Amino acid sequence: MIKVGIVGATGYVGQQLTWLLYHHPKCEISFLTSNQYSKMNFSKIYGQYKGFINKKCIKIQEIDDYLDQTDVVFLALPHGKAFVLAKKCLAKGIKVIDMGADFRLKDPEIYEKWYQVKHDGVDFISQAVYGLPEIHREEIKEADFIANPGCYCTASILALIPLLKAGVMDPSSIIIDAASGVSGSGRSANTENLFTEVHESFKAYKVASHRHTPEIEQELSAASYDKKKIKITFTPHLAPMNRGILATCYGNLENKQSIEELYELYYKEYGEEYFIRILEDLPETRWVKGSNFCDIALRIDERSNRIIVISAIDNMGKGAAGQGIQNLNILFGLKEQEGLEMLAMMP
Amino acid sequence: MIKVGIVGATGYVGQQLTWLLYHHPKCEISFLTSNQYSKMNFSKIYGQYKGFINKKCIKIQEIDDYLDQTDVVFLALPHGKAFVLAKKCLAKGIKVIDMGADFRLKDPEIYEKWYQVKHDGVDFISQAVYGLPEIHREEIKEADFIANPGCYCTASILALIPLLKAGVMDPSSIIIDAASGVSGSGRSANTENLFTEVHESFKAYKVASHRHTPEIEQELSAASYDKKKIKITFTPHLAPMNRGILATCYGNLENKQSIEELYELYYKEYGEEYFIRILEDLPETRWVKGSNFCDIALRIDERSNRIIVISAIDNMGKGAAGQGIQNLNILFGLKEQEGLEMLAMMP
Amino acid sequence: MIKVGIVGATGYVGQQLTWLLYHHPKCEISFLTSNQYSKMNFSKIYGQYKGFINKKCIKIQEIDDYLDQTDVVFLALPHGKAFVLAKKCLAKGIKVIDMGADFRLKDPEIYEKWYQVKHDGVDFISQAVYGLPEIHREEIKEADFIANPGCYCTASILALIPLLKAGVMDPSSIIIDAASGVSGSGRSANTENLFTEVHESFKAYKVASHRHTPEIEQELSAASYDKKKIKITFTPHLAPMNRGILATCYGNLENKQSIEELYELYYKEYGEEYFIRILEDLPETRWVKGSNFCDIALRIDERSNRIIVISAIDNMGKGAAGQGIQNLNILFGLKEQEGLEMLAMMP
Amino acid sequence: MIKVGIVGATGYVGQQLTWLLYHHPKCEISFLTSNQYSKMNFSKIYGQYKGFINKKCIKIQEIDDYLDQTDVVFLALPHGKAFVLAKKCLAKGIKVIDMGADFRLKDPEIYEKWYQVKHDGVDFISQAVYGLPEIHREEIKEADFIANPGCYCTASILALIPLLKAGVMDPSSIIIDAASGVSGSGRSANTENLFTEVHESFKAYKVASHRHTPEIEQELSAASYDKKKIKITFTPHLAPMNRGILATCYGNLENKQSIEELYELYYKEYGEEYFIRILEDLPETRWVKGSNFCDIALRIDERSNRIIVISAIDNMGKGAAGQGIQNLNILFGLKEQEGLEMLAMMP
Repeated sequence: MIKVGIVGATGYVGQQLTWLLYHHPKCEISFLTSNQYSKMNFSKIYGQYKGFINKKCIKIQEIDDYLDQTDVVFLALPHGKAFVLAKKCLAKGIKVIDMGADFRLKDPEIYEKWYQVKHDGVDFISQAVYGLPEIHREEIKEADFIANPGCYCTASILALIPLLKAGVMDPSSIIIDAASGVSGSGRSANTENLFTEVHESFKAYKVASHRHTPEIEQELSAASYDKKKIKITFTPHLAPMNRGILATCYGNLENKQSIEELYELYYKEYGEEYFIRILEDLPETRWVKGSNFCDIALRIDERSNRIIVISAIDNMGKGAAGQGIQNLNILFGLKEQEGLEMLAMMP
Repeated sequence: MIKVGIVGATGYVGQQLTWLLYHHPKCEISFLTSNQYSKMNFSKIYGQYKGFINKKCIKIQEIDDYLDQTDVVFLALPHGKAFVLAKKCLAKGIKVIDMGADFRLKDPEIYEKWYQVKHDGVDFISQAVYGLPEIHREEIKEADFIANPGCYCTASILALIPLLKAGVMDPSSIIIDAASGVSGSGRSANTENLFTEVHESFKAYKVASHRHTPEIEQELSAASYDKKKIKITFTPHLAPMNRGILATCYGNLENKQSIEELYELYYKEYGEEYFIRILEDLPETRWVKGSNFCDIALRIDERSNRIIVISAIDNMGKGAAGQGIQNLNILFGLKEQEGLEMLAMMP
Repeated sequence: MIKVGIVGATGYVGQQLTWLLYHHPKCEISFLTSNQYSKMNFSKIYGQYKGFINKKCIKIQEIDDYLDQTDVVFLALPHGKAFVLAKKCLAKGIKVIDMGADFRLKDPEIYEKWYQVKHDGVDFISQAVYGLPEIHREEIKEADFIANPGCYCTASILALIPLLKAGVMDPSSIIIDAASGVSGSGRSANTENLFTEVHESFKAYKVASHRHTPEIEQELSAASYDKKKIKITFTPHLAPMNRGILATCYGNLENKQSIEELYELYYKEYGEEYFIRILEDLPETRWVKGSNFCDIALRIDERSNRIIVISAIDNMGKGAAGQGIQNLNILFGLKEQEGLEMLAMMP
Repeated sequence: MIKVGIVGATGYVGQQLTWLLYHHPKCEISFLTSNQYSKMNFSKIYGQYKGFINKKCIKIQEIDDYLDQTDVVFLALPHGKAFVLAKKCLAKGIKVIDMGADFRLKDPEIYEKWYQVKHDGVDFISQAVYGLPEIHREEIKEADFIANPGCYCTASILALIPLLKAGVMDPSSIIIDAASGVSGSGRSANTENLFTEVHESFKAYKVASHRHTPEIEQELSAASYDKKKIKITFTPHLAPMNRGILATCYGNLENKQSIEELYELYYKEYGEEYFIRILEDLPETRWVKGSNFCDIALRIDERSNRIIVISAIDNMGKGAAGQGIQNLNILFGLKEQEGLEMLAMMP
């Protein structure tokens, strides 16, 4: 059994990792940290584990006692907090999957500009592999250190890469308009995310200023046929639901093309991928809820020769913890879908 | 008192008209028709009226008995159903406010192409004024026949007109990405809109093919500085909430401009408008829920020199019944906000 | 115009009072206090007021500057906080409507036992009238100081009093099982009321220990035909919605009685009441949402000879701010429904 | 592999069975019937199966072609529809698990009175075992024909049996007040269950007249220490959520008893049960959502010496399909939790 520690286990990403690991046939949980709930039984905070996970949360400071019996550590922390822990674990030969943003951007200057935090692990950036398996699988296989992608980024990058690789779209025309469920905002107590403030409302936020922007740009640029720097416009919205991201991505086609030709690019790129489903029908977030799938469909606006790619993921699944486990499976040579075969539950 | 009949009173638009008229100080309800619920007391279908509206629904065929005592009729019918009734009422000298799509498009060919129905009232098209008061107020004042705008159209047109009038945006670059609450789908019993199918999900629908597209294009073209035909890309989404539309509208700026300069265009255009609120903060649908306001904010994506205009309305308010009453007020020379002064209720 | 101050204006009850007063034809707002948001414009916190209420929140300490121009003050504070302010305002001849629990219970020992706070206004208890107009209207007319009832209490007391007055039910058999929307929990930032913790779940809380229990008992006992002390069992539940309370109240009938006889008791008691609607159909919280109505229906379980009374209110309306305004109207000799005539909006 | 057919696969219970069977390590799906969607691919109706279940729905009339290769059939049909099919399958030696109500009640007169349908399978009633494993496990092991319990019944019966077995509660005092998510109403297109009619509302329905009443009474009577006929009062409510049932059950204790003594009865009865979790904290439906657990907690109202038992299940899980699979596991000698080990997902 692979022994897995989770730092930040009582946030939503940490808890979703715990849930997946609990059901994973090849993993066992080594430790769960929580600063807020240290010494409390994990099942006291998350009642679904009553009778099944009987483990006290420990403080980050206490993990040293557990690291010797740990094969891999997930860091599910706010940005700026992974530097010290990542270095410590790597130094001990423990693999690290960082769920946060600290090692996703290859350029520390861009990191510091968007996150307003000094990057305190510059030497380790090159060691961190951007953990989007459908794009970087071979590097992940060789890695010890994974920077797990952001939720909006996963949905957006997977949606757009086949077009950019093929060079059929004007890269300067990309607009990504996405909506997320509220779990993306985390579990901190703040007025803004109270039920009564979110329910029965819809809004845009961080328009043209969301931190996932440079991350999407980095990956789209690297994957595009001519490697030129791509700049996108990205608008996130908050939808009154627990989970799910839908990304509606727009771009101008360079030439007239049939929808079949464009679909063909996606089949070629993703045809063998277990977790990407190329759909004729439009995706809906409910069909991926709780799963690690990314559903993608294409439409052409004939009147403007614009391509519209729509992708749906569960922000907690393929957008965070599910993808984290997928990376773990690759790191340890397991079947990629191990512990991730569940389909969305309906209704 | 102005005597008002509502044809199609038990659909959501009809019921919202009833609600507004019930509270309107200068109107009284003459008749309420409902094919599905004829002979039933209106308050049996909509329980909030128990003890306050004690009126039986009549069939459309029975309205002749009421037309003599009626000053204005709202038609809240599916498209294709307003032709006969509109003509009949107008012939009797009764003003008509058509909440449906039959007379919004000036070109019957475009109507027939998008709605797949023969236009059976071509002679009356020129008589119908597009009832967006902030744009067509003077014509509405002189009219007998109003084509009340579509919900997405109201949010989109109001959001974009100041930029197009000023000619600061490339009209071929317009993308409108909008989300609506479920009431926009009406009250017909269909599986797709069951609570259990909609709740906890988000999806796009009718991508690049929604019928509000030509309506938006007609009005944007007419208002733009050079009157050229504008083609837009429009993507509607369904959000798991009862009410509200948020439109996120994108366009490329022709030149570098400051956000202040652009806001100035909106203040100039809408500064005197009671129902348009130009905001610095981003709009949220909850702040307009139940009201007739349209909240608008601007952002520039400096990196791509793209303008993002975000507008919020209540699809039942400014997007349908509220605007219908606003038109009624203008038609009858009342204060425009009569009966429409309610602010959104929170939470 | 009656000049009204609100202490605690940015909590949900305070904000709902503000909303009702803004629309009230005979009132104007004198001041709004908020410790958390002092010096901020009220419309910055509650966006629906943008352009319409342009008032800065003041600190409680600053109200002295406003009291001279104030006729009545609403106290919308957590329990234990009304003592000092109530006394100060009353001393200045300003009427006080306390939305909190501090003066609802006539017996300070019971208050101290259930609220775990010393009662610091014992001398004023007898001056405070329990502000349930349908039961205490005559006393309210003469009063300067109103203790506005709790939300669950209003729904429960109005549901049961006709039966207890008539002595047709065994008072020891009363069980009240009620569910409330989340706004009843207030606007404080706490993890428990995050959207993601409440949405898609239903739970009971404070079973047999909720503080509204003694308040319900006090009023039921006083109203019952023999004035004996009544003890009830009360179970509140949390429902995933913003607003609304439904109380399902059970009791054993002393004798066999027809449903018509029992309805007759309600018509006799409430037949003239504007805000109580006795229904044949079962109440639903949506039909009273945003209004000041209390809808009540009766059923007999013939098999056990048990009466089931179901009442629905809006916890923010008749359960708090609406009733507060109803009390204000009585205090100032206005028509009781002044500013409260709005029916629930649907959907 | 056990070959399983589902009749009525596109209703919510049928689909949840499909979902559980898809993930079940020892079962495979033999056929899926759907009258409404016959010939359509199942994954066209339920998009989560895209790429994973590629099976066309067949008509009931076509199942003969499949029965030879089928070991067990689930009937997920409206009441009154199971008679013919159950007999046919049993005659062929195929086991039957009826998810509907037709064979739950042992007394056909009671069935006919509550369901207003002639019982067309009286000879088979005695063969049908009431499929509540925690109560009837030994009989289920020997059975070929299971009447799977109703959702409210499962929550209520499990909550109350330990008290009735011990004889500590007055059986004539039982009141069950329960709330269910909307999936309990099924997937038929009707106005009443539209998102816009259910969202943001809470109501009671079928007060003292719900068809689960006699089923609960049958099982409570049979399990009680003196086997006397028990009559209960049962009130179901509709909560604005997809899934979950919470049952709040009241009864008068015969004598003063400590909460510990009462909990002891539950530990004795259910201590070995995998799917029953006896909690100190109050249950919440979210902690059982998607699972087959029944969470139970007890409280005493000391002031009235009343016991309050609160139980939570997922109406689609332990309340329907989960329990159906649990019965299948017992029928075929599998581990009872096979395919049912998933814990609730949060948020």
